[in-house]
Amino acid sequence: MKVAEVLHMNGGMGETSYANNSLVQQHVISLTKSIREEAIMSLYRSKHPRSLAIADLGCASGPNTLLVVSEFIKVVEKLCRNLNHESPEYKVFLNDLPGNDFNNIFRSLDNFKERLRGEIESEIGPCYFSGVPGSFYSRIFPNQSLHFVHSSYGLQWLSKVPENVNNNKGNIYMASTSPSNVLTAYYNQFQKDFSLFLKCRAEELVEGGRMILTFLGRKSDNMFSKECCYIWELMAMALNDMVFQGIIKEEQLDSFNIPQYTPSPSEVKLEVMKEGSFAIDQLNVSEVSWNSLECESQMSESHVDGAYNVTQLMRAVAEPLLVSHFGENIIEELFNRYKKILTDRMSKEKTKFVNVTILLTRKP
Amino acid sequence: MKVAEVLHMNGGMGETSYANNSLVQQHVISLTKSIREEAIMSLYRSKHPRSLAIADLGCASGPNTLLVVSEFIKVVEKLCRNLNHESPEYKVFLNDLPGNDFNNIFRSLDNFKERLRGEIESEIGPCYFSGVPGSFYSRIFPNQSLHFVHSSYGLQWLSKVPENVNNNKGNIYMASTSPSNVLTAYYNQFQKDFSLFLKCRAEELVEGGRMILTFLGRKSDNMFSKECCYIWELMAMALNDMVFQGIIKEEQLDSFNIPQYTPSPSEVKLEVMKEGSFAIDQLNVSEVSWNSLECESQMSESHVDGAYNVTQLMRAVAEPLLVSHFGENIIEELFNRYKKILTDRMSKEKTKFVNVTILLTRKP
Repeated sequence: MKVAEVLHMNGGMGETSYANNSLVQQHVISLTKSIREEAIMSLYRSKHPRSLAIADLGCASGPNTLLVVSEFIKVVEKLCRNLNHESPEYKVFLNDLPGNDFNNIFRSLDNFKERLRGEIESEIGPCYFSGVPGSFYSRIFPNQSLHFVHSSYGLQWLSKVPENVNNNKGNIYMASTSPSNVLTAYYNQFQKDFSLFLKCRAEELVEGGRMILTFLGRKSDNMFSKECCYIWELMAMALNDMVFQGIIKEEQLDSFNIPQYTPSPSEVKLEVMKEGSFAIDQLNVSEVSWNSLECESQMSESHVDGAYNVTQLMRAVAEPLLVSHFGENIIEELFNRYKKILTDRMSKEKTKFVNVTILLTRKP
Repeated sequence: MKVAEVLHMNGGMGETSYANNSLVQQHVISLTKSIREEAIMSLYRSKHPRSLAIADLGCASGPNTLLVVSEFIKVVEKLCRNLNHESPEYKVFLNDLPGNDFNNIFRSLDNFKERLRGEIESEIGPCYFSGVPGSFYSRIFPNQSLHFVHSSYGLQWLSKVPENVNNNKGNIYMASTSPSNVLTAYYNQFQKDFSLFLKCRAEELVEGGRMILTFLGRKSDNMFSKECCYIWELMAMALNDMVFQGIIKEEQLDSFNIPQYTPSPSEVKLEVMKEGSFAIDQLNVSEVSWNSLECESQMSESHVDGAYNVTQLMRAVAEPLLVSHFGENIIEELFNRYKKILTDRMSKEKTKFVNVTILLTRKP
């Protein structure tokens, strides 16, 4: 099994971490809300489809899973009422890797539909939900079967750890001390994966169909820019300390690399242009401060601590990868150390996650 | 939660019972193989679709789940080669109630596809699988989106226990001692459910689309005929013994009824004619001896015992219903008693399950 699959199969998060994942995702989803709404309205106005197919790629299984779907239906229903149109039927495809907890999503659907009907306060078009297991780096839908594709926080994951990164010693991701072949290998894997993604979606979307993608990225042209790599460098720091103290073997750390790539807007743009099937409607960068998790999570005492929240978030994301490489035993120790490092750094400097959001239209 | 849902949500079977369920289902699936093959071929010849949509309703989650799908694809691929046609794309919809274990199905799909490719020995058309949670007594697919619908051993289950069967004392299903209002209530519920099922599928199937349904039924016009009711009468016998011995309360038994109806071919025909959307191509009755399970299961010592196998089968089917009504505690005791009764009866008389199979075509 590929490392990225281990991670992605867990929907990128463990059971204890929905609340935190929920915070970041909700933040990102609300940041990009207006772009989506405009895209949905312009899509509806241009096609007036009687049957609207929306796919959420990398839907995971948590409180955010149906957020965008619900927004999509609300926007279309409102528009239909304004235009005095009959509601269309909705085909909702929820995709993630086969290891995702689809059972959990399916068992929540009846409640979701009921809540949605309550919120919209009028008869809505029939909604048909289905779960579609598979990697979005392959064809997962029939030809020209989708009108709208959404993916949030999935596409920074590569299909696998790049090959030929064996000499990335002491690092677990791209870093300032990474040899140039490592940076090239990461970038090549991103190009290969992202262009395959675009090619597959181009075949699955109808002409004029829209796709909105948000993923972790960077603003700088520098691949090992702090804004995207620092979070992993601090984790590498904790791991290196554990190597120094003999808790982890050096070879083990040297052979561990994160299957992620955090592209710049221009790298994203380049791949879209090279692939050629999509027009770029918007390409934005937004930022979420690591500390922003602090102010938004006033639910309980433990959540007031920003470093705690970032640790939990990163644990949710990285734990499956770490467990499959290092085993379960080091996890508690590692994240205790990581939290200490984060607490120190976050008290001294302002650090942010950078999100790249791109809105595309399938060309005729 | 409706009682039928409890049962159906468990895919009609517990985890320990796939092997047995597998035997009966496999038997039925092989009995009806030639009807399906002809139907698939005639469907393909009449429509030459480039994209073929097949739905399996009540797919459960076990070794038989993908059996019919695999057969379907093999038949079409063979036909395409004979006709020198390019393979179509396949859209496979796997439906069951939201409580079904879809995760298990999804995690087996990669292996399934690999095996299928190995068996067919040539390039096959692209296959897109999705899971569709929901009761088949409601709309679950978009308008005219299906070419072929299959359902095996699902439709004998009613959407709920009929109303007004409170006076079915000492019985748990229709029986010779059931008051006439109980028989009427069961029949009415069947009519309501089955005609709703037909109406929904009529909207979902394309013109000329085929539907093949196999379910437990009876040959006799007599609703409480032994061929369909005896298996439950023997279970009621065990339960009544337990009431007699004070293990179960009489009121508890009196308020327990199985949400099933085992129709005769003419009852099925009548509903199809009344609903009006389908032409009947074939309507067959087949039988599986209770003892047939015996000869087919030579895997282990314990399986050589026919009564053991029937007990396991019925336990898989009925346990969720029984647990939700009587609690967990009585289960072992009940099925020990049931097995004794079955051993006795099966040694003295020949008993059979009756299957009704109907092949329908969506009229223009």
